[in-house]
Amino acid sequence: MSGIFKGKTTGTPISLIVHNKDYISKDYNNIKDIYRPSHADFTYDKKYGFRDYRGGGRASARETVARVCAGAIAKKILLDLGINILAYTSSVGNIKVKNIDLDYINKNPLKIPCEETAKKAIQLLDNLINENNSIGGTAYCEITGLKAGIGEPVFEKLDAMLSKAIMSIGATKGIEFGLGFLASEKKGNEYNDIFYSENNEVLKKSNNSGGILGGISDGSKITMNIAFKPTPSISIPQDTINNNLENVNVTIKGRHDPFIIPRAIPIIEAMVAITLLDYILINMTRKIECVKNAYFNF
Amino acid sequence: MSGIFKGKTTGTPISLIVHNKDYISKDYNNIKDIYRPSHADFTYDKKYGFRDYRGGGRASARETVARVCAGAIAKKILLDLGINILAYTSSVGNIKVKNIDLDYINKNPLKIPCEETAKKAIQLLDNLINENNSIGGTAYCEITGLKAGIGEPVFEKLDAMLSKAIMSIGATKGIEFGLGFLASEKKGNEYNDIFYSENNEVLKKSNNSGGILGGISDGSKITMNIAFKPTPSISIPQDTINNNLENVNVTIKGRHDPFIIPRAIPIIEAMVAITLLDYILINMTRKIECVKNAYFNF
Amino acid sequence: MSGIFKGKTTGTPISLIVHNKDYISKDYNNIKDIYRPSHADFTYDKKYGFRDYRGGGRASARETVARVCAGAIAKKILLDLGINILAYTSSVGNIKVKNIDLDYINKNPLKIPCEETAKKAIQLLDNLINENNSIGGTAYCEITGLKAGIGEPVFEKLDAMLSKAIMSIGATKGIEFGLGFLASEKKGNEYNDIFYSENNEVLKKSNNSGGILGGISDGSKITMNIAFKPTPSISIPQDTINNNLENVNVTIKGRHDPFIIPRAIPIIEAMVAITLLDYILINMTRKIECVKNAYFNF
Amino acid sequence: MSGIFKGKTTGTPISLIVHNKDYISKDYNNIKDIYRPSHADFTYDKKYGFRDYRGGGRASARETVARVCAGAIAKKILLDLGINILAYTSSVGNIKVKNIDLDYINKNPLKIPCEETAKKAIQLLDNLINENNSIGGTAYCEITGLKAGIGEPVFEKLDAMLSKAIMSIGATKGIEFGLGFLASEKKGNEYNDIFYSENNEVLKKSNNSGGILGGISDGSKITMNIAFKPTPSISIPQDTINNNLENVNVTIKGRHDPFIIPRAIPIIEAMVAITLLDYILINMTRKIECVKNAYFNF
Repeated sequence: MSGIFKGKTTGTPISLIVHNKDYISKDYNNIKDIYRPSHADFTYDKKYGFRDYRGGGRASARETVARVCAGAIAKKILLDLGINILAYTSSVGNIKVKNIDLDYINKNPLKIPCEETAKKAIQLLDNLINENNSIGGTAYCEITGLKAGIGEPVFEKLDAMLSKAIMSIGATKGIEFGLGFLASEKKGNEYNDIFYSENNEVLKKSNNSGGILGGISDGSKITMNIAFKPTPSISIPQDTINNNLENVNVTIKGRHDPFIIPRAIPIIEAMVAITLLDYILINMTRKIECVKNAYFNF
Repeated sequence: MSGIFKGKTTGTPISLIVHNKDYISKDYNNIKDIYRPSHADFTYDKKYGFRDYRGGGRASARETVARVCAGAIAKKILLDLGINILAYTSSVGNIKVKNIDLDYINKNPLKIPCEETAKKAIQLLDNLINENNSIGGTAYCEITGLKAGIGEPVFEKLDAMLSKAIMSIGATKGIEFGLGFLASEKKGNEYNDIFYSENNEVLKKSNNSGGILGGISDGSKITMNIAFKPTPSISIPQDTINNNLENVNVTIKGRHDPFIIPRAIPIIEAMVAITLLDYILINMTRKIECVKNAYFNF
Repeated sequence: MSGIFKGKTTGTPISLIVHNKDYISKDYNNIKDIYRPSHADFTYDKKYGFRDYRGGGRASARETVARVCAGAIAKKILLDLGINILAYTSSVGNIKVKNIDLDYINKNPLKIPCEETAKKAIQLLDNLINENNSIGGTAYCEITGLKAGIGEPVFEKLDAMLSKAIMSIGATKGIEFGLGFLASEKKGNEYNDIFYSENNEVLKKSNNSGGILGGISDGSKITMNIAFKPTPSISIPQDTINNNLENVNVTIKGRHDPFIIPRAIPIIEAMVAITLLDYILINMTRKIECVKNAYFNF
Repeated sequence: MSGIFKGKTTGTPISLIVHNKDYISKDYNNIKDIYRPSHADFTYDKKYGFRDYRGGGRASARETVARVCAGAIAKKILLDLGINILAYTSSVGNIKVKNIDLDYINKNPLKIPCEETAKKAIQLLDNLINENNSIGGTAYCEITGLKAGIGEPVFEKLDAMLSKAIMSIGATKGIEFGLGFLASEKKGNEYNDIFYSENNEVLKKSNNSGGILGGISDGSKITMNIAFKPTPSISIPQDTINNNLENVNVTIKGRHDPFIIPRAIPIIEAMVAITLLDYILINMTRKIECVKNAYFNF
């Protein structure tokens, strides 16, 4: 709608509209007064005293289309800087990816980088659909090609901001960097990443830290794991309450995925891209030489 | 230094100075040119081209004293609102707390809520000190007494902002809410927290979500687990590089804790308190009735 | 487009689109390479190295439609709080308003509160149209019904923020509060507004300060004058340069007002309303009693 | 106190303390319950329900020392970029500067760039001191050496932000750019600044706009005039009220300047410097080429 002229950005905000055409109002009629378990119906109603029940409003994953659009632009710029972001499904329930084959990610609807795991997971999901049930899982995301020095001290550490960005995606329940929770079981001499130098380049013998030291990128791969809860919308009848606080029973209708992560993959990549690009721009002012160069030469 | 007059805040920023008297400059002389493994020496130098090597600068845990001071004020206000924040050490390496006894937290230097676990952990740490080694662990934090409705939609979800706040503390490697990573292995009907109503109050039969739904508090306990890496400063000789990118060997001297979490406990509580209070203030504008009341009556 | 459900706001951002149908592309063909005098063509091109020449892009007054839309919502809320914002044209060139008749503002296209002045001004503008020329003028704006206590200390003073808000409107060249520049010629004992009390109310014998003391509203009328330059688009041939830095001559075509202020009146009111409402919301946290009341009762 | 190591900034916030040693507490004892006319005593008390009466708290000009300190650093950087900021007193009451002699600014305590005007003004102020009275005046400020392209569209225009910055200084009552209020009396063909080109440089035949077009610097001198009210603290007895809303009479004691602008000159320069530097940093991201250069080369 705005911001682009003759194929180039003008500096004006880029705006676009995505019309939701895949929307069936009547699906929501039977739940308009009901607080679905593990949904945000209750908390929104409690907060605002009023709620748009048609599809969950801003608590619906529909809002993430804006994130993916913005992320697509950020990724184009990052690619120009030699930076790649890649996310995939790393587990479905307790089925975990074994042998990584990145080429396979886009060859299966679950975005799993392993043919054998994908097949097992698809069978599991077929069973869950029959049960009208759903399941959780984990995603993995990595950033490659990022130079050292990106991220800010104290409150705006790169891992802190990536955590905020990722944990703002619906259904996420946890995030970890590098070894993550496993780091909590390690001794210092097992965990520490040993620096060494080769051809005037700084390298590390391991990457347990996941590419961030003191909140600032160290030039190695940034890695993170993200936990997702099972899709809360299931068609199994569930006890719950309505907005008169009466105990009722609900069966949720409509089209719902038994497993949410394949849809979350582009959202994760988008949020990482937006966050990274922000920090790359912020990092531009780190040295007076850079300020002078930008003022005099562009 | 400012902001308080006759025992009351004036609205002026409250400033205070904590003079660091426990500081031995010469401890840093032998590492001023060296990038300690898993420290931020390298990333700061890479970012700014220059670094204050006396104690790590802003990458040192010394900066957290400001967080604890601010948190102390936030906690006083939260207490007035009936809100409590409690954190403790939940594991040391692979020694995990078994039976929770909250009274025991302040009876042991490790802030562990379990006498048996604390004793085992102390023995482990004694051995590590002898080895000049360190170890990671986990902390648990809960918020009790918080009403439903706190947190903002989309990017500023309460769990997103708590994640940012916590992950901005040095040495953190992961955070999870409620069941966290375990949620990824659950089916929808196992995970969903069933609402019910009793005496006109909204209750839940479980709290797998950890008290937050759609980024907004639901009135139940907010729970989180936090992973910490082992203290990177160990006195075991380690290979590394210096700022000329020469491969060297370093033995870190000075006073360093083999286990960092007991010192992180008040920082976690402080960051949670600051974040919560921010969101309680932001939430004041959620209804026009509240705006009117505040304008006309105060 | 969003944010409203069943006639009430949901908390979601309210979005709307205003399609510009009064747009003649070819009017801009002859000036696409030309830097119009006293327009932003040159500065935008210099900044971005690229420019959307069709109507001036974001430097065009077209962008102010968004301000007026947002202001309309802010004004509804302010009205509920008993706060009124009124702006009018106070001079056209050197024809200044003499006797104020507020009822006349909407009875003439120039938004002048004085029949005699309006008639003189209309004649002046008729002559200017024949000359293909334009003229500057001033606007006056007042806020009535605002309680004392709105505005923040130091950098975010109410007059500072209103200045920013108003001076962000295109073609403004100056702003003053109360006596404004005339205050610079006064002695302390002539200028100072003497407080007195009547029926337990704080009153002032004069309002030279224009209703703001120390950046905070004092409960009396807030008054400001705003200077506008003449419309830069005139159809008189003018010397200028093009984007090859060649000296050229340009005659600007298209529909352009010889006098801009009547169109600026709603923009001024909108910017004042948006700014005021922001500060009323910020002011909600000024006392702990208000925080408690908002937390427990809404 | 922090932020500097071996004569260079480390990126850590630079903090410093200025101890106020020129402070006589008892001067405030007789006014602690009194709302001085045209001071912020009343508005602060009304806002917070509580007030630090010793010297006016944050409403005192004492807070501006922080602005001047920050400005001193900003000015050093701007100087490196070839940018100069100069302010001086342009009128005292209705005595206005006639012939500008910049060398004379620092040769008189009033910071007036004209020997004849300074002498007249000093005589006026001597009389006012005898009357226990004060007077207003105007300051002029100019920025030279700034390249075109600095400032942001729409809400963050350079003149809007400079207005906010300047109007946040106590005692200011108005600001104007270029011709300012005089522009309101001009016709388009009189006011418009005609561009021309010479030796591949963009020049203007006049600078009525004061160096800013569409909120963005145009490469010519940025000029502004600022109106100051008379010092409100005068030793002439004045009627007023106290905080019980009783009508009383007050004579303000203590050391007070009859004319405030000489002390405001460094504050104006500081606020302009801080604002300009912010916008120069923001402008660094305006072109993708600059982003790439900063990422790869620094």
